[in-house]
Amino acid sequence: MAVERDIDDLPKHAANYTALTPLWFLERAALVHPNRKSVVHGSLHYTWHHTYLRCRRLASSLSRRSIGFGNTVAVIAPNIPALYEAHFGVPMAGAVINPVNIRLNASTVAFLLEHSSSSVVMVDQEFFPLAEEALKIWQEKKKSSFKPPLLIVIADESCDPKSLKYALGRGAIEYEKFLETGDPEFAWKPPQDEWHSISLGYTSGTTASPKGVVLHHRGAYLMSLSGALVWGMNEGAIYLWTLPMFHCNGWCYTWTLAAVCGTNICLRQVTAKAVYSAIAKHGVTHFCAAPVVLNTIVNASPDETIVPLPRVVHVMTAGAAPPPPVLFAMSQCGFRVTHTYGLSETYGPSTVCAWKPEWDSLPQETQARLNARQGIRYIGLEGLDIINTQNMMPVPADGTTVGEIVMRGNAVMKGYLKNPKANAEAFANGWFHSGDLGIKHPDGYIEIKDRSKDIIISGGENISSVEIENSLYSHPVVLEASVVTRPDERWGESPCAFVTLKPGVNKSNEQHLAEDIMKFCRSKMPAYWVPKSVVFGPLPKTSTGKVQKHLLRAKAKEMGPLKMSRL
Amino acid sequence: MAVERDIDDLPKHAANYTALTPLWFLERAALVHPNRKSVVHGSLHYTWHHTYLRCRRLASSLSRRSIGFGNTVAVIAPNIPALYEAHFGVPMAGAVINPVNIRLNASTVAFLLEHSSSSVVMVDQEFFPLAEEALKIWQEKKKSSFKPPLLIVIADESCDPKSLKYALGRGAIEYEKFLETGDPEFAWKPPQDEWHSISLGYTSGTTASPKGVVLHHRGAYLMSLSGALVWGMNEGAIYLWTLPMFHCNGWCYTWTLAAVCGTNICLRQVTAKAVYSAIAKHGVTHFCAAPVVLNTIVNASPDETIVPLPRVVHVMTAGAAPPPPVLFAMSQCGFRVTHTYGLSETYGPSTVCAWKPEWDSLPQETQARLNARQGIRYIGLEGLDIINTQNMMPVPADGTTVGEIVMRGNAVMKGYLKNPKANAEAFANGWFHSGDLGIKHPDGYIEIKDRSKDIIISGGENISSVEIENSLYSHPVVLEASVVTRPDERWGESPCAFVTLKPGVNKSNEQHLAEDIMKFCRSKMPAYWVPKSVVFGPLPKTSTGKVQKHLLRAKAKEMGPLKMSRL
Repeated sequence: MAVERDIDDLPKHAANYTALTPLWFLERAALVHPNRKSVVHGSLHYTWHHTYLRCRRLASSLSRRSIGFGNTVAVIAPNIPALYEAHFGVPMAGAVINPVNIRLNASTVAFLLEHSSSSVVMVDQEFFPLAEEALKIWQEKKKSSFKPPLLIVIADESCDPKSLKYALGRGAIEYEKFLETGDPEFAWKPPQDEWHSISLGYTSGTTASPKGVVLHHRGAYLMSLSGALVWGMNEGAIYLWTLPMFHCNGWCYTWTLAAVCGTNICLRQVTAKAVYSAIAKHGVTHFCAAPVVLNTIVNASPDETIVPLPRVVHVMTAGAAPPPPVLFAMSQCGFRVTHTYGLSETYGPSTVCAWKPEWDSLPQETQARLNARQGIRYIGLEGLDIINTQNMMPVPADGTTVGEIVMRGNAVMKGYLKNPKANAEAFANGWFHSGDLGIKHPDGYIEIKDRSKDIIISGGENISSVEIENSLYSHPVVLEASVVTRPDERWGESPCAFVTLKPGVNKSNEQHLAEDIMKFCRSKMPAYWVPKSVVFGPLPKTSTGKVQKHLLRAKAKEMGPLKMSRL
Repeated sequence: MAVERDIDDLPKHAANYTALTPLWFLERAALVHPNRKSVVHGSLHYTWHHTYLRCRRLASSLSRRSIGFGNTVAVIAPNIPALYEAHFGVPMAGAVINPVNIRLNASTVAFLLEHSSSSVVMVDQEFFPLAEEALKIWQEKKKSSFKPPLLIVIADESCDPKSLKYALGRGAIEYEKFLETGDPEFAWKPPQDEWHSISLGYTSGTTASPKGVVLHHRGAYLMSLSGALVWGMNEGAIYLWTLPMFHCNGWCYTWTLAAVCGTNICLRQVTAKAVYSAIAKHGVTHFCAAPVVLNTIVNASPDETIVPLPRVVHVMTAGAAPPPPVLFAMSQCGFRVTHTYGLSETYGPSTVCAWKPEWDSLPQETQARLNARQGIRYIGLEGLDIINTQNMMPVPADGTTVGEIVMRGNAVMKGYLKNPKANAEAFANGWFHSGDLGIKHPDGYIEIKDRSKDIIISGGENISSVEIENSLYSHPVVLEASVVTRPDERWGESPCAFVTLKPGVNKSNEQHLAEDIMKFCRSKMPAYWVPKSVVFGPLPKTSTGKVQKHLLRAKAKEMGPLKMSRL
């Protein structure tokens, strides 16, 4: 037997093994395309040569202040070059980047900074007051044991100079000055272990208490490549930053862009006009956007749009199931939409509704319906299934049996920070539990039916809020819709629709509009699914465009239970 | 400190860690595109659904015969479906595939089978006599301790039925019959450790004693994805098998094709006509070929070719530096040639001459010269340099200083099988030593000057045989050229050129042709580089198209030292 085992008896050497990390991509991009634009922000243009030097300076500056393995660097910024650079510079110093959602309030930011034990806070000048207030809350809580983090303010010429002056007056170091303290030839090293952490991101929005999702170098490397392959994103792609980088590291596309030696087009604020003008000016080939952004694009006024597009623009969407009517409208405009699905816990999207050439000949509405499904696993995710949570067995691929969407493999997070209870629940029985409910179609593609907590149980029957929403989006006056449960005297719960109307719709008779919408729904779905209440107004959203259903649920609850007399 | 380290204190689970292996790709291809053609061989068409079932049958059949972890399965076959299937089925059983070069003689095959302790030999019906003879030699050597491997013969309807009948008469199991003994639903598992071996390939050709190069699952996974990214090989690529799969697992494209859910077009024999007809019939988008095959293509007769091509066809070449005139001619025909370089020890190519858009505007000859360089590292290879072997320091990027090409990272082999001495040499000082000599250009791209052992030292000066060959290829009558050292009374060594003439060249006056070639060389290179001997005739080659310089060196030696009087 000894002889036969020779085939596996060869050890690792320095020459034939190294930790996987996306940091390799940056070194390579700077070598292959040193003069190609790496990051564009307004009039600011960096090349990959610049970006590599700047990231090494950042790593060196941090190292010289003893920031390294075990430390966390928080960054509070919109999509600007410094946040991109921090995705490389911080881990090059051995530390963990914690990109913070800029829409959070000061007390939540204070919670994040304390929970992550951030040693450094990098903050965009516009958001300096937010950081300052958060630090004050943190300090007041910790009292004398408070150790203030190093505070770096990032100047942006598109902002009011006053806010920069204010920040500098409060003792913050300016980012460019900080970079100057670093060595542009800093000899960074890959992590000793590819399992070492690279990023920390807090779950946002629809749940109450944020959990710190820890990602590692191995996963970030694999998902960066996977994201390029799944999307057919080739060498030299021009990528528009509509998706916030603070959202799952921009679904790992921060690192992918270095792997494909592409160009990052930054964007402080997302509007339909800004998207179309970046397509025209920079030749954008790819961007990612939550369905709400797609909705903005397809509903843009004619003077903001470019139709037909000069070339196919690839759009990746995820974050919620995009309503088929929106998908259809996007494809009419000339965008090719790739629909993906995932969570912060899976490095962003990790399933894709992979397009089949045989769908090309189907009616466009059918195409949109097929493409609204969440699909199959990314190359980087090794296991995806829908299970019956009672017995942990896969549900049949019958397109009807609902179960929990579960994942496993290298695209699943390292775990939640300092939260053994949440980890035990999330990783129970060898799967990562998404908390989303879905079905498996006969072709193996999965489709979300609802978040477990968004499901409406009316008269003992499950109702998918997502399906009702999809129907509502096809109503001509509906711009956005979200359906939640409302207490109901007779049925326990019943669907309540919150609707935003399209611009120009006559809103004078809401009662009439509500009845029209309910009538429309009756023609599309079982009677017990039809929303029994319709409420008009803007929808509360997270910074990443997710509708905050917990707020709507609270609102529906406040409205009190539906009386039996109404039925 | 304990608190700060929390960020790295999260263990691996079944849910968030699994071994990297290219076997995942096949499961995924069968799920996403079950009805897409996976493997085409003559009139035989398999879909990814079929291929997945067949590979699981193979794995199951092997398992039922106790072939698994620690065992090696040799396959002696040209580019046929069974060899493709073995790349998945064998490792799915936990065993290691050893694809054997079909051009080897029986005694070398006997050496390989014994050295690899192969438990199973799968052999194409045409090569059954070769396998039989090899087994006989092995048996005669081992006498009573010989344990005959399981012998499987692969039928191919394009071969003479007699050879199949013969094999069956000798007790071999027919491959399809063998598959029938397996379970198509076999529950394969990824390896327990991604460092486990997946393939064994023997170095071929230019060196005397074959060394067994062991590759692991992790490297195969990473290189498969890297090969797609580097080449811009997108989902659904149609790949023509001109490159033998037995050569470094077809440069890992065996596995890549499953990752991109593409189509494999098999080819038993490579001719220009077969290549062009596959492009026309199957819509081939990509193929790999040694420079000798490119030469065949550009020199094909007009009735065999399709010019212009119906679409751009991507060609990857490696194995020897392609002469710039051949690259130029390929691009004239409409092929887009990606030039790569690597060794069996680096999973096939692991450097690429990445094209820069700024080269597009250069004269085509300049383009060909730039593209003839070996380039920069693949995404999957983390370290590449040229070092001074005296002090192990990198040479300057000056385009002139010659040093040894060295690599390190995840795309470097696990090691040589049962050869600690060769491993110690190959992995000395934290690098893998390629044995190739090269220079580093100011833009960081490397260029091979010669194999260490191919360098000619004349009067104490190094002469690059490759540079002389590149010049010879631009001579109008030269089809192929190879330059080796010949003993020389005055200078110790001097260059000797072996030349094959193009069809139609008048060969009646070889003396005159030789003088003309030498005169041509004098106009292109320093006087002491000019070949002092020119010999006409076909060049001996390995099955992968590498010129066997050791045979030419032997021939040059037999010719005896050049006399001083000739100078």
